[in-house]
Parts: sequence; C-alpha cells; structure tokens
Amino acid sequence: MAERLVLHEDPVSGNCYKIRLTAALVGVPIERRAYDILKGETRTPAFLGTVNANGRIPVLQIGHRFLPESGAACWYIADGSPLVPSNRFDRADMLRWMFFEQYNHEPNVATLRFWLAFVGEANLSDAQRAAIPAKRAAGEAALALMDEHIRHRRFFVGDSITLADVALYPYTLKAGGGGFDLSRYPAVVAWLDTVATTPGFVPMD
Amino acid sequence: MAERLVLHEDPVSGNCYKIRLTAALVGVPIERRAYDILKGETRTPAFLGTVNANGRIPVLQIGHRFLPESGAACWYIADGSPLVPSNRFDRADMLRWMFFEQYNHEPNVATLRFWLAFVGEANLSDAQRAAIPAKRAAGEAALALMDEHIRHRRFFVGDSITLADVALYPYTLKAGGGGFDLSRYPAVVAWLDTVATTPGFVPMD
Repeated sequence: MAERLVLHEDPVSGNCYKIRLTAALVGVPIERRAYDILKGETRTPAFLGTVNANGRIPVLQIGHRFLPESGAACWYIADGSPLVPSNRFDRADMLRWMFFEQYNHEPNVATLRFWLAFVGEANLSDAQRAAIPAKRAAGEAALALMDEHIRHRRFFVGDSITLADVALYPYTLKAGGGGFDLSRYPAVVAWLDTVATTPGFVPMD
Repeated sequence: MAERLVLHEDPVSGNCYKIRLTAALVGVPIERRAYDILKGETRTPAFLGTVNANGRIPVLQIGHRFLPESGAACWYIADGSPLVPSNRFDRADMLRWMFFEQYNHEPNVATLRFWLAFVGEANLSDAQRAAIPAKRAAGEAALALMDEHIRHRRFFVGDSITLADVALYPYTLKAGGGGFDLSRYPAVVAWLDTVATTPGFVPMD
C-alpha cells in the first residue's frame, strides 16, 4: 500500500479494532490517532470539519483522504488480499455478514455493551432504557443465528478467514459486557478461538 | 449471468427495490416472488428453513443458493459492472455510503416510514413511541449529511451512478412517509431527479 494509513479511533471501540485486525492479518502498517468518544472528542469543529462530518469513528485516513465506516475501511485495506474471497458468490456472501453485523448485531449487542459497561444504566435516558428489552431480544437472535451458521464450519464464508469473521469478531467477543451469556452459543465460542489463533491475529486490548 | 435470479421480496420495501433497481441498471433479468411482511409471510417455517433463517427480506436466490441483505445482493448483481467503481478508493467509498445507509439512514428514515405509514402510530409499542424523537433527529442528521455531500456533485461517489446512489435512493425518496420534509434538503431533491433520469432506471412502484 503506497499511501500512509492513519486510523482515527477510540481504542475501546470494536469497530475501530476491526480495522486494526484487518491491517494486522493483511500485514499492512497502520498509525493510530486516539479520541475519547465519551469526552466528545469526535464532535469538535476540527474533527467534524476534517475527519468526519458524521462525528463518528473509526475513520481511515488514506493519504489526504478520509474514509468513514469500519466495513468500508476494512474493505479498502483487504481489497485484493485473501480476506476478500475471489469467488463472486462468496464475496457477496461476505458482505452479507458484514451488513448483518452492522444492522442486526452491532446496534443490539454492541450498543447494550456501550450503554451498560461504559455509559452506565443509571445514566441512560428513558427512551434508551425502554429500548433495552428489544435490543436484548434482537442481540440474542443475532448470536443464535451466528451459532446455527457456524456449527458445522470453521469460518463464516468459505474455508478461510474473511472480513465476515473480522467484522463479527470484536462485538461478539465483548458481548458479555452487554449482559449476553456466550456459553449459550458454544459454536460461536469455538469460532472465537479459531479466529484468535489465525496467523497475524492481534488482540483487541 | 448464467444462473437464474429470483428476488424474494415485499413490493413496498425499499430494500427490495434497491435490488430491482440494480438489476434494471445492469440489464439483468430478475424474477420476483412476493411476501407480505405485515402478514408474517417471512416468518413461516418454510421461509425460515429455506430462504432466510433471519426471517427478513429481501433475499436474492441465485440458482439454489440464497443471499440475504440488500447490499450484498446488489453487490452480487453489479459486481464487474460500472455500478461498482474500478478505482480502489472509490469502491471502498461506495461501501462507506452503503454501510452509512444501513446504519444511519434506514433504521431512522425507513423505520419511521414503516411505523407511521404502514403500522400506524396507534399500533406502536411504548418502546417504539419512545424511540421516535431519537430516530427523527438521527434521520434528519442523515439527510443533512447527504445534502451537504451531494451539493456540488451529481452522484455520491465519482462521476457516475454507483451502488451508493442505488442504496440511498429508495428510502430517501419515501422519507415523506416518515414525516421528513425533503424540501429542507434541496441538493438531495436534485440528486433524486438525477437518479430517476439515469438510463435503465425503473421506478419503485
């Protein structure tokens, strides 16, 4: 990769870790620039004006260009590597799990972790507290769907690790922080171990 | 495309329309199989066992294989066509808008349309009603971000239509059903017209 890569991140964010893990698995160096979400460091005029008008991290800086959205950043780094399958169906199927993660998994499993383990239940708004049961049910459904899919496979798509596994790994690993009991999903637990023993793997913390 | 494509869909769903629009722009024939979400037709044992264990549509059937998630299905159909940029950054930037749409736009703009125009406000749960203000604010923020981005461009990525435009088009077009006033976003309105006059375009209804 010719251009310098800088990850604008919060080290505790699983979405940011996905990008570090992708870079590690591909073997590409990446610089890190830390922000604290809870202190509003991604809502400053400088951040909004330069890095991301959406006020969110991660953002991957590629030379002088900025790329928000963890899935897009992972794709940019992994494009052309074995982390993106060369088979047409598998490539789309990998995206299927990446979209599933952002739509069905992250807003439930990761959001409950953020609310309960970082914000604190006492500090939630009434609307957030009212949303907990639905997020709990949807998060369990996402984990159950994963468990069913991975029961007879090693990786989510094909026979080797892809961005589907990278995208699903961080917030599944940290699901306990949101009150999810992973022992109910033994195939998922086995898959977490498989990912963690992949050559090039780096841990979240 | 050698294999037969069947779209399992609800005709009123914008996520399903994205796939029909992609197929039309690429010029690929696609068969349609309709389900009514509100009647639970995607929650039957047959649907869950064969088409999608997630109980959701759209699902793109490719021969005997099933591909859930609208973004993945659009990618499968458009892979190798001009709807997916050949430039590495642009390809990732297109995915950036597709993930933005599924994370920041659809759960707010489309969900409010579904709740208010299809389910009916009187039939919402207390938790859903409590979520309306946050979804309203997040939906307006998504539309404002789009308006800012598209102000000096014709398409979201590069100089021609890509899956980024296809992904953002349906629920932006229908935002009024969720109580969003598109006249506040004139650049978005102009872009909707640009998409609708693209060769191969098919309307939603």
